[in-house]
Amino acid sequence: MTNKKKINAAIIIIGNEILSGRTLDTNTSTISIWLNSIGVSVNEVRVIPDIEKIIVDTVNHLRNINDYVFTTGGIGPTHDDITAASISKAFTVDYEIHKDAFKILEAYYKPGEFNEGRQKMVWMPKNAELILNPTSGAPGFNVENVFCLPGVPSILKSMLGGLTNKIIGGEPILSHTISLRTVESEIAKSLTNVQNNNNDVEIGSYPFFQAGKLGVSIVIRSEDKKKIEKCSSEILIFVKEKKIELVDR
Amino acid sequence: MTNKKKINAAIIIIGNEILSGRTLDTNTSTISIWLNSIGVSVNEVRVIPDIEKIIVDTVNHLRNINDYVFTTGGIGPTHDDITAASISKAFTVDYEIHKDAFKILEAYYKPGEFNEGRQKMVWMPKNAELILNPTSGAPGFNVENVFCLPGVPSILKSMLGGLTNKIIGGEPILSHTISLRTVESEIAKSLTNVQNNNNDVEIGSYPFFQAGKLGVSIVIRSEDKKKIEKCSSEILIFVKEKKIELVDR
Repeated sequence: MTNKKKINAAIIIIGNEILSGRTLDTNTSTISIWLNSIGVSVNEVRVIPDIEKIIVDTVNHLRNINDYVFTTGGIGPTHDDITAASISKAFTVDYEIHKDAFKILEAYYKPGEFNEGRQKMVWMPKNAELILNPTSGAPGFNVENVFCLPGVPSILKSMLGGLTNKIIGGEPILSHTISLRTVESEIAKSLTNVQNNNNDVEIGSYPFFQAGKLGVSIVIRSEDKKKIEKCSSEILIFVKEKKIELVDR
Repeated sequence: MTNKKKINAAIIIIGNEILSGRTLDTNTSTISIWLNSIGVSVNEVRVIPDIEKIIVDTVNHLRNINDYVFTTGGIGPTHDDITAASISKAFTVDYEIHKDAFKILEAYYKPGEFNEGRQKMVWMPKNAELILNPTSGAPGFNVENVFCLPGVPSILKSMLGGLTNKIIGGEPILSHTISLRTVESEIAKSLTNVQNNNNDVEIGSYPFFQAGKLGVSIVIRSEDKKKIEKCSSEILIFVKEKKIELVDR
């Protein structure tokens, strides 16, 4: 929406456990918040099953239309962990033992504990760059603009810090939230007017229930702080006129 | 994987608030669990922004390759609620006032409260069928195999019961979980053998942390109870051999 080049990313959540509903995906939110803070917008998220052809096709489609692609899941030691092999196919490179990853895990585990199962985790696409894992040893990796992270949320979270230097973002995407004790229909028309006056700012309206009462959070997003402030003051004008109560949230 | 026809669905989560990470999507899990219980597998989930062209293209792509498509979000009264207009474009039908939806909301609100903002919620694709909303009046709708639900999780949840008769599923997808006090690498090889013996059953392995201890949940999924039982007993054989503790979870 601005004249500056936007830096975009897609997230691919790999895992039958998300598609079955058994596991709630929290990694999208974690990655998106982190990306926004370093000036990268998330265009799209796809949740796909542990099926090689689907992983290969999805990665190849999304890596060509986004600056960055992040995958989560499927890099552990079991039979259903097929992300590294699939990424190798996507880039048509060999799937092989990564020497540095091998050294890391050899040093991480006690003698004798670096067994066959664990050794699977050092098989990666040829020439992959490692993403260090301060929590549990086994690294993630990236090939070009595709970054592969584990599915376990706490481990994934601990790896993002080390990634920040590898991602070149734009201006951080700022947001400001105004929460009101009202319902959406009361403010819909006024909010439309504000949006029409401020086409290059993203304004979202989200109803909520809190302590048994209805409310609406208006979220204003832009890379430009001044634009957010202008929008915010226009909203506060109609809020005051309509005598709507502001809510802390 | 079985010889019976599988009934498949895709879910489209429409909303910038999910892509920004501000809101955690819980609707995927809610819809997936419900669909599994009525014999529908979820093939794919996409999270997309509130942009008409993207909604139209995504709906048109996914409705042709899935038995059912479910969308969430974007059917409220504000300027960022563009799902109904986008679905009208996807099906190239008129976007117009739905008479039955109008009557429902006219009766739902107190006299004078059915204002312009709320009236936006009765604009739908021509000939849409309504999905009743027992929580807050405003109905969802479906056009052919595309079912449009609201984004607010509690409201969405309350609408699924009324939808069950509209969805023709296959055999319910059953699952059985075996949780173990072990790490994935200890069981990876044995579990691969079980998977190779039971190609038509889906076996997933998911590490967890509980009360400071590591564990692994093995999830076996199939429409066929006997196949799950066979798989389960094969797993319990190696669990016993390896003297791995079973965990309640």
